Amino acid sequence: MTPERVLALLQQVAEGSLTPAEVLEQLALPPIEELPFATIDHHRALRQGYPEVIFAAGKTKEQVVAIAERIAARGSGVLITRAGDAVREAIGERFPAAELHAVARTAYLPPDEPPPVGRGSILIVTAGTSDIPVAEEAAVTARALGNTVERLTDVGVAGIHRLLAQSEALGRASVVIVVAGMEGALPSVVGGLVRRPVIAVPTSVGYGASLNGLAALLAMLNSCAPGVSVVNIDNGYGAAHQASQINHLVAKIR
Amino acid sequence: MTPERVLALLQQVAEGSLTPAEVLEQLALPPIEELPFATIDHHRALRQGYPEVIFAAGKTKEQVVAIAERIAARGSGVLITRAGDAVREAIGERFPAAELHAVARTAYLPPDEPPPVGRGSILIVTAGTSDIPVAEEAAVTARALGNTVERLTDVGVAGIHRLLAQSEALGRASVVIVVAGMEGALPSVVGGLVRRPVIAVPTSVGYGASLNGLAALLAMLNSCAPGVSVVNIDNGYGAAHQASQINHLVAKIR
Amino acid sequence: MTPERVLALLQQVAEGSLTPAEVLEQLALPPIEELPFATIDHHRALRQGYPEVIFAAGKTKEQVVAIAERIAARGSGVLITRAGDAVREAIGERFPAAELHAVARTAYLPPDEPPPVGRGSILIVTAGTSDIPVAEEAAVTARALGNTVERLTDVGVAGIHRLLAQSEALGRASVVIVVAGMEGALPSVVGGLVRRPVIAVPTSVGYGASLNGLAALLAMLNSCAPGVSVVNIDNGYGAAHQASQINHLVAKIR
Amino acid sequence: MTPERVLALLQQVAEGSLTPAEVLEQLALPPIEELPFATIDHHRALRQGYPEVIFAAGKTKEQVVAIAERIAARGSGVLITRAGDAVREAIGERFPAAELHAVARTAYLPPDEPPPVGRGSILIVTAGTSDIPVAEEAAVTARALGNTVERLTDVGVAGIHRLLAQSEALGRASVVIVVAGMEGALPSVVGGLVRRPVIAVPTSVGYGASLNGLAALLAMLNSCAPGVSVVNIDNGYGAAHQASQINHLVAKIR
Amino acid sequence: MTPERVLALLQQVAEGSLTPAEVLEQLALPPIEELPFATIDHHRALRQGYPEVIFAAGKTKEQVVAIAERIAARGSGVLITRAGDAVREAIGERFPAAELHAVARTAYLPPDEPPPVGRGSILIVTAGTSDIPVAEEAAVTARALGNTVERLTDVGVAGIHRLLAQSEALGRASVVIVVAGMEGALPSVVGGLVRRPVIAVPTSVGYGASLNGLAALLAMLNSCAPGVSVVNIDNGYGAAHQASQINHLVAKIR
Amino acid sequence: MTPERVLALLQQVAEGSLTPAEVLEQLALPPIEELPFATIDHHRALRQGYPEVIFAAGKTKEQVVAIAERIAARGSGVLITRAGDAVREAIGERFPAAELHAVARTAYLPPDEPPPVGRGSILIVTAGTSDIPVAEEAAVTARALGNTVERLTDVGVAGIHRLLAQSEALGRASVVIVVAGMEGALPSVVGGLVRRPVIAVPTSVGYGASLNGLAALLAMLNSCAPGVSVVNIDNGYGAAHQASQINHLVAKIR
Amino acid sequence: MTPERVLALLQQVAEGSLTPAEVLEQLALPPIEELPFATIDHHRALRQGYPEVIFAAGKTKEQVVAIAERIAARGSGVLITRAGDAVREAIGERFPAAELHAVARTAYLPPDEPPPVGRGSILIVTAGTSDIPVAEEAAVTARALGNTVERLTDVGVAGIHRLLAQSEALGRASVVIVVAGMEGALPSVVGGLVRRPVIAVPTSVGYGASLNGLAALLAMLNSCAPGVSVVNIDNGYGAAHQASQINHLVAKIR
Amino acid sequence: MTPERVLALLQQVAEGSLTPAEVLEQLALPPIEELPFATIDHHRALRQGYPEVIFAAGKTKEQVVAIAERIAARGSGVLITRAGDAVREAIGERFPAAELHAVARTAYLPPDEPPPVGRGSILIVTAGTSDIPVAEEAAVTARALGNTVERLTDVGVAGIHRLLAQSEALGRASVVIVVAGMEGALPSVVGGLVRRPVIAVPTSVGYGASLNGLAALLAMLNSCAPGVSVVNIDNGYGAAHQASQINHLVAKIR
Repeated sequence: MTPERVLALLQQVAEGSLTPAEVLEQLALPPIEELPFATIDHHRALRQGYPEVIFAAGKTKEQVVAIAERIAARGSGVLITRAGDAVREAIGERFPAAELHAVARTAYLPPDEPPPVGRGSILIVTAGTSDIPVAEEAAVTARALGNTVERLTDVGVAGIHRLLAQSEALGRASVVIVVAGMEGALPSVVGGLVRRPVIAVPTSVGYGASLNGLAALLAMLNSCAPGVSVVNIDNGYGAAHQASQINHLVAKIR
Repeated sequence: MTPERVLALLQQVAEGSLTPAEVLEQLALPPIEELPFATIDHHRALRQGYPEVIFAAGKTKEQVVAIAERIAARGSGVLITRAGDAVREAIGERFPAAELHAVARTAYLPPDEPPPVGRGSILIVTAGTSDIPVAEEAAVTARALGNTVERLTDVGVAGIHRLLAQSEALGRASVVIVVAGMEGALPSVVGGLVRRPVIAVPTSVGYGASLNGLAALLAMLNSCAPGVSVVNIDNGYGAAHQASQINHLVAKIR
Repeated sequence: MTPERVLALLQQVAEGSLTPAEVLEQLALPPIEELPFATIDHHRALRQGYPEVIFAAGKTKEQVVAIAERIAARGSGVLITRAGDAVREAIGERFPAAELHAVARTAYLPPDEPPPVGRGSILIVTAGTSDIPVAEEAAVTARALGNTVERLTDVGVAGIHRLLAQSEALGRASVVIVVAGMEGALPSVVGGLVRRPVIAVPTSVGYGASLNGLAALLAMLNSCAPGVSVVNIDNGYGAAHQASQINHLVAKIR
Repeated sequence: MTPERVLALLQQVAEGSLTPAEVLEQLALPPIEELPFATIDHHRALRQGYPEVIFAAGKTKEQVVAIAERIAARGSGVLITRAGDAVREAIGERFPAAELHAVARTAYLPPDEPPPVGRGSILIVTAGTSDIPVAEEAAVTARALGNTVERLTDVGVAGIHRLLAQSEALGRASVVIVVAGMEGALPSVVGGLVRRPVIAVPTSVGYGASLNGLAALLAMLNSCAPGVSVVNIDNGYGAAHQASQINHLVAKIR
Repeated sequence: MTPERVLALLQQVAEGSLTPAEVLEQLALPPIEELPFATIDHHRALRQGYPEVIFAAGKTKEQVVAIAERIAARGSGVLITRAGDAVREAIGERFPAAELHAVARTAYLPPDEPPPVGRGSILIVTAGTSDIPVAEEAAVTARALGNTVERLTDVGVAGIHRLLAQSEALGRASVVIVVAGMEGALPSVVGGLVRRPVIAVPTSVGYGASLNGLAALLAMLNSCAPGVSVVNIDNGYGAAHQASQINHLVAKIR
Repeated sequence: MTPERVLALLQQVAEGSLTPAEVLEQLALPPIEELPFATIDHHRALRQGYPEVIFAAGKTKEQVVAIAERIAARGSGVLITRAGDAVREAIGERFPAAELHAVARTAYLPPDEPPPVGRGSILIVTAGTSDIPVAEEAAVTARALGNTVERLTDVGVAGIHRLLAQSEALGRASVVIVVAGMEGALPSVVGGLVRRPVIAVPTSVGYGASLNGLAALLAMLNSCAPGVSVVNIDNGYGAAHQASQINHLVAKIR
Repeated sequence: MTPERVLALLQQVAEGSLTPAEVLEQLALPPIEELPFATIDHHRALRQGYPEVIFAAGKTKEQVVAIAERIAARGSGVLITRAGDAVREAIGERFPAAELHAVARTAYLPPDEPPPVGRGSILIVTAGTSDIPVAEEAAVTARALGNTVERLTDVGVAGIHRLLAQSEALGRASVVIVVAGMEGALPSVVGGLVRRPVIAVPTSVGYGASLNGLAALLAMLNSCAPGVSVVNIDNGYGAAHQASQINHLVAKIR
Repeated sequence: MTPERVLALLQQVAEGSLTPAEVLEQLALPPIEELPFATIDHHRALRQGYPEVIFAAGKTKEQVVAIAERIAARGSGVLITRAGDAVREAIGERFPAAELHAVARTAYLPPDEPPPVGRGSILIVTAGTSDIPVAEEAAVTARALGNTVERLTDVGVAGIHRLLAQSEALGRASVVIVVAGMEGALPSVVGGLVRRPVIAVPTSVGYGASLNGLAALLAMLNSCAPGVSVVNIDNGYGAAHQASQINHLVAKIR
């Protein structure tokens, strides 16, 4: 249960559309719920602003659906990442309102109350066409967490003028996610052009010595441009989550 | 030359304390300055809000002093990291006003105009006593870039209640830097307790299989808590730079 | 042939239900038995308290069944790990009394004499739902070796209060097995909360830079909490075996 | 403050040699003590049976002495590992009663109340002469934590009969620590000979491809003998700590 | 064309069963034969005593058959390693006399003249059942190159008495090949028991941290027993080739 | 649009076969073209002499065809590497004139104007039959970029005389590409025999410790022969591209 | 003896300043010269155009001087790389005409005949001040081998406009050497801007996860820009040697 | 005590120069001798033909001398490897007859009875001058174990004709040790030229990506030439030990 959801419930009491007893029932739900195979942390939404996100890799579709049901039952939004075909199909059958995304391998069920939207925007930059699935995971996540998303696609450093032509978009963002495989050079270049934080996402795209993304990961960690931090290989979700925290910081502390 | 410096110059023209010609002379200085061994990017301060920071490792003390002189000549602040004893001594002799820090291995010469201060604060959390030098590099950097800094020291996960006792400090920060060696578990725990971005800094502290910090680095990249991104091993400077960007985002976009 | 089995035979002689000659025949069986593809160490049960456990990976189902037959012929229990579908099916057909476990990928045929049960209990803690198969391999093994097993599931460090809420269970165990992938931080936290030995099992669960469990393995080896030792990636069996040795130590030395 | 210390204080009240008020003063000391560079976890002794052990690597001698003073002030024993010459000298000057050990690189100040002694014994086996410093760190630790220690030295697998000749010593121990560098094969052989838990300690001894102990570490993690778990490279302390937990388990649950 | 084959041809001239011209025709065949995809080194047999062995991995079955035809045309024996099902089937159809071995993944066509047989014998020792395919590749190769082969199977170090019981076989061999996965400890133990050269073959058998055989490889390279050298992971062929060179050295220099 | 194409257009204007307006229309096409999933850099042909080459791995066949259409529309040649069966089939259907190469996994559509041909020749040397696919990728690329290609196949260092017999071919080339897996020794030997630049391509051919080509890569980087540089594992395209740049340097600077 | 030296000798015969017998004596010197610790390959100069270069690391100063004497005795130039202080001093004493370079750690004794100079020029680009020693090794080598050298210093990607401002210098070179540490991104950007071959040299400059240059090496091998090849870490010599081969190709084949 | 020593004693009894009682006294010495820091395996000489060799790294000079005294007391030869300056000096003082070798870092005290000499010879080939220390360790060891040693120095693959000129020496050896750093290519070339076993020793000589000898080690393990096996990096001793076993095999089985 997110702070927004609590606020909405209280508003309905104030308006008389819900009785105090009805709201109490919802507020009294236990913060931790135990399934045979999972311990769901419903308190996370209140503590961190977003409910638990389901990482579907290594879980059966039955497990994913069961966890999703428990989260949805609280009126929270449900985001599922690394959702393969079978998981997406199962979620789609159980939750017809879910938004399924094959490229990003995500499923998303919006919450009862829409999340607050950050004031700035998150710019997602990709080095090449093959990096798009990771960028899409980031985009779906960022929007689910209440952010405006912009994109620059296929502007890798081998044709640096493609990037330089986009200085306006680069300047507009409050935080930039840069997704790149191979040599992972793009975040360093972007980091030298903007004054906003850059979150770098290495991807597992490349020939043999890319070592499934380790080469890009190491490059990004060694960025000579300041203001670049890094998340795990192919972890579009993680980058978007932190980008959203930063973007909401703008709206909330104010 | 930072935006603040430009603003101050123009203010002085408006007040009549400087003539337009005097200001023009300063504004007309070339954005790039070439030494035999360096190409100084004076434009960075305007483009990114902070002047170039000097990474002293691999440079002679003469090179460091020469670069510092060129940056100081523009009225910008000069921050030098990885400054060993010889470099700090040379800087101290040339710039008596410089602040030298042996633990952090930094030297800092404040700019003519103090930098604007972010509204929030940066919290620097360290897992153990041996991580302090890296944390100090972050603290010196963060203050130089115009931030309020708080600290939690030696609150590693082996005694988790030391951290849990500090929930108020954790909740107060707008961004958290977590510095840890060995197994690098602390950022995951902190990431699960706060709703603000966490920047993790692995340190090269530990026994053999810490692989000089690689173990902590990998752990942090694999954090199961959302909202954690990572910088290079022992890179306190890099973490503080991005934390400052985030903290200033609060003040500036508003 | 386990010590328990020898004791039972001698008891039957004392009671007159077996003749000395009948028992002699069994005791005279050779301690090593050679198949074309295996040298079975029947003496292990007497030497170490447990018979050889069959690691099925890399063996044909015919080989596994043949080895199982020789061990079962001595009245010993047969435990098979890494038993894929084909192996489990073949064992199930040959030994209808075998207990087959798809999640744990094990097959287990109880011995003629039940193993002695340790006085304490083994607690198996998992960080996430995806770690369950490894935890189940540990649980099946621990029970087969004569132990009481308890479980805490999905209590990873991103929601540390899920673990702290279980202090009673943590305090009750005589030895704790902690199963975790990704950053492998959970054993450090548990190690700081309990005074009993913690055996950490890294799992191959995670995004790219988990390096198939190496990140968690390294983290666990670098645990800042004392009292944590580590077994191979995904090696639930190995952890349970040592945990059982520890738990039986309680019962036996006494 | 260890449970033994609390018991002794209460005993003195019962005997009238201390007033309740005098004891209260000691019991009321705060469980966490903050120095500028450390957060001391005095509660660990009550929670885990042993006070914090000081890992001196990366700390200044002044920091080590200051932390030691705070722990000693509570009447707890102080164990310092990785104590180089300067640290040992400083501790020796400040605490004349401290036991200094150059080979093990430890300093040890016994507590006011001697720790309870486990019923069984810990056997420390080393593969070669070069492994002795790590074995000594383990021996000093084990004795400090209240254990009887036995030793087998230089019984590596290249002369396997040296080990086999010691079956009695192997059978007598309640837990075995095996210290080995190079190929790290000894724990596997020992693990196949005993029914007690084996804790393997890889050392950084060896030619180039030992990779500073990584080769031995990997070998030990892959032990084909059951009942072997592993701690970090050269981590004699860690092995002894867990061995002590196991050995005390025997005495305490009983 | 092997030295034996040349000798046999000349013998036939001496006996009058072949004319000098007929033999000349064979001796005049070019030492290098070029196919579009291979440059066959027929001279190798004369230079090194054995013809080229075909490593089938990465070659099409058509390529393998074509190369085999050219070698067979010279009367040399043809040994094919890493021959998958398709390659073995194709060779079997083209050369009905070929010996196909599914476990070893080899195909072998004996030469017109049998190779000379070394005086001593090669002992192939395997640690576990899962190592048998690699051991079989070695056995097939060793016999093809003219050696007597003996075997000890499944005598890994977890049950060291299985090996010690075989001291006679160990003492009889002129060279020992030891095949082991997991921790790769067996060659060290064997190396300490025999006075003959030991060639160690690591296998890719094991749990996660075996790193597909790297752990065993490193262990073997670090063997504390003298007289152990190592070949590539799973390279039964390479070990047998060198063992044969050693074994023939006995016969030939004499 | 390549320089050659521009020249041809202008020639047609001079000859009256095209009107200035018709040519203007072509020259006025934008240098960057944006698709939803790609930002095509048409300017690359003018800037670097060759149009963008499409790396098909990680792209859908629809994406590859769409990008190819845009490049072909400008009259440029289209080269597609890492083109699997599905991609080659799709390209073949859409562009009947395309040359498809199954071994090299390439598809190539010649430009409207043939590229200028370099004066010298590129020699492609392979160590073994299994390296041919990578060598073919290099050969297709080199020819597409306007070069004469020669080949030496299967001349690895185990039969060094196969290479030494080809000194004439080695001396004739203006640049040599050496393709080798396993120990990657061939470039060092070739580098010591020729006075022209050698570009080494490691391949992922080999047993376990080849680490998918890393062993060959490292060997080539450590070549004791001067004049050897290295490209990524299996990157025949990259080697050929640089070789072509070198070969055209001969023709063009002149 | 270089081809130029031979030509000069013959010229002197033609001019009568040397007798045929005097020249014969020089031409008759053996192509290989054996010292107790070295086998000098005098033929290399004729075969490859340059004499052997002495890599001083791991050699005593006496060995270096002795080898240098033998090469100088043939009238060839002597280039010594990785020459530490002691070696440079010893060479300076023995050969007063030698050029010693402390930053590049080289010593150079020009040949009797100056080498022919390539027509184009080699551009050496460095990312940062700390990369200068490696760049200087390349510069000294390139000049010794007869090339015109240009430089761009400290133009790393964090301030990309520093590089873009130098398009003329980039366009002028016939081959570009790019020296960079940290993330090694600069060769990719340069590779996308020029049509000439780029030789990338990773340096061991950087924080912890640069892994002593491995991060930069991997990045460069994965360059998304075509036309980039790579040499060993810190190997300025190797890059310059190949660059010289390319540059001379221009002059010679013409 | 070696077999030769036993033979000599018995011979003296037969000749009457020793009484049976005197010999008995010597034969009755215990096979294992325990020092506080070592367990000396005197039986090794009888079991393996050579006494224990002392690896001095990680041992104090006092420990080395003490172990040497016990071995010498039995009349066995004493070989000490990795003997630094202090150890060699201490041995030289205690045993004036010891042969000290600074380059090889060895000390050697001949046995009372000279070892039998193998019939063939061991050829030690080095790639470069920097590899000589490792080659010398091998040479000292080989001679101490009773072998004739030949050498080829500095015949690396960059000047392959230096090696090819030595075909006679290559053909004469019964076993070849090849010592090489950098790319480690030499064993593959030698392995293709000889019909005798090749033992490859990688050295830690090279630039950055040699990874302290790992590159050469991997290359040698992947040798495409048959008959090559590998020992640890810089392990000249290990190579010579196995070479001696092979060379003595010739003499003994005969």
